[in-house]
Amino acid sequence: MSELSNLDQYIRNIPDFPIPGIQFKDITPLLAHGPAFNEVITTFTQRYADQKIDAIVGIESRGFIFSAPVAINLGLGLVPIRKPGKLPHHTLSVEYELEYGSNRLEIHRDAIRPGARVVLIDDLLATGGTVGAACHLLEQLGAEIVETAFVIELAFLDGRTRLGNRPVYSLLRY
Amino acid sequence: MSELSNLDQYIRNIPDFPIPGIQFKDITPLLAHGPAFNEVITTFTQRYADQKIDAIVGIESRGFIFSAPVAINLGLGLVPIRKPGKLPHHTLSVEYELEYGSNRLEIHRDAIRPGARVVLIDDLLATGGTVGAACHLLEQLGAEIVETAFVIELAFLDGRTRLGNRPVYSLLRY
Repeated sequence: MSELSNLDQYIRNIPDFPIPGIQFKDITPLLAHGPAFNEVITTFTQRYADQKIDAIVGIESRGFIFSAPVAINLGLGLVPIRKPGKLPHHTLSVEYELEYGSNRLEIHRDAIRPGARVVLIDDLLATGGTVGAACHLLEQLGAEIVETAFVIELAFLDGRTRLGNRPVYSLLRY
Repeated sequence: MSELSNLDQYIRNIPDFPIPGIQFKDITPLLAHGPAFNEVITTFTQRYADQKIDAIVGIESRGFIFSAPVAINLGLGLVPIRKPGKLPHHTLSVEYELEYGSNRLEIHRDAIRPGARVVLIDDLLATGGTVGAACHLLEQLGAEIVETAFVIELAFLDGRTRLGNRPVYSLLRY
């Protein structure tokens, strides 16, 4: 089930979280294990080292855990995409649909220069709603999304389809 | 005003955010600048490299941006302290007072082994309410808090007093 066969053992399955019928993938055992956490970050770092990337983008809040170390390893800046009301300067905002209701994401308007080559890193690709909205923000600012990268992909939810022709890379697929 | 004199220029002052009368310290220009972001992480990394640290602890969500790269650089695991309802396994929880109302933080009960030497890293020390609550969680699990470390300290709010005898280190003081 996994590209890096040894990482799967550090993902804990939590039944019925956050609601009955959902099996949650808990990444905290992976984070707690220095070598496993390092393997994830090293894999991402090596993948993008020679891709002339201008910035790494992370989505609040678990996305920060993986995007920030990759930015540091590559000597790049980190662009945060955040929940509403958190970014204090001029923002661009996008609303996206959830199963029930909707959500918003924001980015600083000055966070990306047009033409910048970026990689978006998050912990999980599920339905692709959140990541698709984040891509939309980046594209509105003129960024070129070289790839979207995830620790875990819930392939049965088919988030790739929602992301259209934006490249997707994931380490663990279920 | 700063220990690393060149970092201050990457902190943007936002007047009246999130409420009138508050001047917000915006760290996104620092994050966007690869060398400045790297200087912060390198400084923390070198400070704790020879301190026999067992784990790095980060507070959701901006704390993740600084704690995760330090954990990676030191080859250590990262322990997340999160807002209520986010951690899916058995949690320990603490409530703390805000100026108006209260807030909660949670940690996984299996996140720390008794006696573990930890460093808690966050972006900002203000009144110390959030960090004090996080320290309380760690101490309840038997951790030894070697130091609490911050990018920015709002010294006029005297968060150090609230943290008692827990050591505090900050890069930029205002």
